[in-house]
Amino acid sequence: ATLPEAVLQQAQAELLDWHGIGASIMEISHRGKHFTEVIAAAEADLRELLAIPNHYKVLFLQGGATLQFSQIPMNLLAGRSADYVITGSWSKKAYEVAGKIGKVRLAVDAASGLPDVSKLETNAPDTGNSGTFDDTAAYLHLCTNETIHGVEIFEVEQALHRLAPPAVPLVADMSSHILSRPIDVSRYGLIYAGAQKNIGPSGMTLVIIREDLLGHTPANVPALLDYQVQADNDSMLNTPTTFSIYMARLVFKWLKAQGGLSAIETINKEKSALVYAAIDGSGGFYKNSVDKHCRSRMNVPFNLPTPELETQFWQEADRAGFMGLKGHKSVGGIRASLYNALPLQGAQALVDFMNDFAFRHNKAGLIRSTQPTR
Amino acid sequence: ATLPEAVLQQAQAELLDWHGIGASIMEISHRGKHFTEVIAAAEADLRELLAIPNHYKVLFLQGGATLQFSQIPMNLLAGRSADYVITGSWSKKAYEVAGKIGKVRLAVDAASGLPDVSKLETNAPDTGNSGTFDDTAAYLHLCTNETIHGVEIFEVEQALHRLAPPAVPLVADMSSHILSRPIDVSRYGLIYAGAQKNIGPSGMTLVIIREDLLGHTPANVPALLDYQVQADNDSMLNTPTTFSIYMARLVFKWLKAQGGLSAIETINKEKSALVYAAIDGSGGFYKNSVDKHCRSRMNVPFNLPTPELETQFWQEADRAGFMGLKGHKSVGGIRASLYNALPLQGAQALVDFMNDFAFRHNKAGLIRSTQPTR
Repeated sequence: ATLPEAVLQQAQAELLDWHGIGASIMEISHRGKHFTEVIAAAEADLRELLAIPNHYKVLFLQGGATLQFSQIPMNLLAGRSADYVITGSWSKKAYEVAGKIGKVRLAVDAASGLPDVSKLETNAPDTGNSGTFDDTAAYLHLCTNETIHGVEIFEVEQALHRLAPPAVPLVADMSSHILSRPIDVSRYGLIYAGAQKNIGPSGMTLVIIREDLLGHTPANVPALLDYQVQADNDSMLNTPTTFSIYMARLVFKWLKAQGGLSAIETINKEKSALVYAAIDGSGGFYKNSVDKHCRSRMNVPFNLPTPELETQFWQEADRAGFMGLKGHKSVGGIRASLYNALPLQGAQALVDFMNDFAFRHNKAGLIRSTQPTR
Repeated sequence: ATLPEAVLQQAQAELLDWHGIGASIMEISHRGKHFTEVIAAAEADLRELLAIPNHYKVLFLQGGATLQFSQIPMNLLAGRSADYVITGSWSKKAYEVAGKIGKVRLAVDAASGLPDVSKLETNAPDTGNSGTFDDTAAYLHLCTNETIHGVEIFEVEQALHRLAPPAVPLVADMSSHILSRPIDVSRYGLIYAGAQKNIGPSGMTLVIIREDLLGHTPANVPALLDYQVQADNDSMLNTPTTFSIYMARLVFKWLKAQGGLSAIETINKEKSALVYAAIDGSGGFYKNSVDKHCRSRMNVPFNLPTPELETQFWQEADRAGFMGLKGHKSVGGIRASLYNALPLQGAQALVDFMNDFAFRHNKAGLIRSTQPTR
């Protein structure tokens, strides 16, 4: 996670004495008026940023998106089956975990031919494992941005809305790109996201749920994991992760000051365009194999001609101050993450480093020695 | 929660740049070498402070003690029954929540005649609802400090160890007094605690579990809630609540610098002795009805002659800088919490305020007007 400098500075300034009350925000009771003001302000700003309709509840929970992988089927299956779309590692995990709770069905498996989820648009019935949708499903689950594979759903999202049975609520894991651009919340039954990409430090999980999906939870589900109970208790059935919610409140305020989600989308488009241009313009030195229409604006995975060069790349980058560029262990390579808090200059600096690195190592003939023709 | 001033100051100083890496501790990857050093140091210091034997695992989880109310039976019941001892609101909740997961039995209900848990010592079989222990139980659950009722288990803890079937592991909720004094970890099968009393800010849950209790979790339990899986993944199956763990690491270091748990116990004894002396010496103006041998050193609930005086007390106290003295809504009255981070002077200042308040309001004859004889 990267946090906006201004947010960190405010948190630092008021860490020992929040708004003159003589105590840290970490020390005060979550039931007292000060913290309830913080959580209410966080919700109000989030509702404004995402234009969340009134018939949706906003919950600030714990356990990360991974706990949601279980909690969603616990609450929504109610003895029925759910459809899952796999577009990468995270949606695959969500599918596997849900299978321990109840009946789930693989509706579309784009993972085998990653990242070609574009087939969905025109040819849904023939895509992947089954590619047909169950119009009696409790819900249809998808992950709208896959961090490891760098696949973001744009047009396909529209396609899903056209192709999926209208009565089946869409459930979306937006952990890694929520708040990076405007979305139409009303198209979804449930949206969830771990905080630690665009919301704030880890420890808080956001759930936005349409009210008609509440109240169908079987009695054997623990109250803490029941969305209805959490909604009835304003996300405070037990002590919430107060500091993470406070930080989220600062991030939401910062986003509003940036001009909201349309403004941040413009910057995110510029940032990712810079990096993809550096890749595509490198004469094959850098390579990203994701179809252009679903290239993620948040996570840009790419490869270099050899694993040795990749190691050299992220090690040199680390020394130059670009942290966390090593790709996920399951796929290797390099991954640049361009979350909201990374300013345009940060992306530009990375691109300068990439160009310089390519110039130095292309000149040395390393590409020719391993991949003779391009 | 109160946090030591020195801990908050260090967190503030390094909030934007942790150890010169140019990033906040909130921003770095939980899998990188910097954060893994933090979590390893937290575990090492905790092991030293509590003298945790090697055959116990230390887990840093999420969801609060409330999620443990479910997670414990999910992992440990394995089709059997568990015994519960009720000594207040929290152990009652733990019992009720566990009943949704599997078979649980009320072994001792001291809550009806709270806080007289002393009967356990000499007369276990006749105590409470049943008062007998099931020697085939999967575990015996207790809450060793009840915040709302101000009941801490000292001698009774020893009694339980004598009376409980030796083969039945004790499972203890120590959320509100862990690290307030030395304990013998080897007497327990599992110890758990929410962070937000003596460990750090909310969001992290500590579990200390004897290794032989791992690995019996039914297959339908989500991996995230399986202690074995969490132990195998060093508490990082998914992103943990990194900032809370970092803060806990600072608190553990601070505790070591104070001289460890024996030293902090000495201070905690002094603090609570001051407050109970003020209550007992007030000629009945302040009243705490907990049996002396199980009066909590962490939470001191007390009453004044009338509810109106109680409201006046906590409101005046609040203005004087003593926050959070209003008793829990379920029992009313006043509650003074004396957690580790409250220095001796803090307890002394509270006692000065109590004496002054009593002096002013006793003089006004308010006691005589409502409770003529004492």
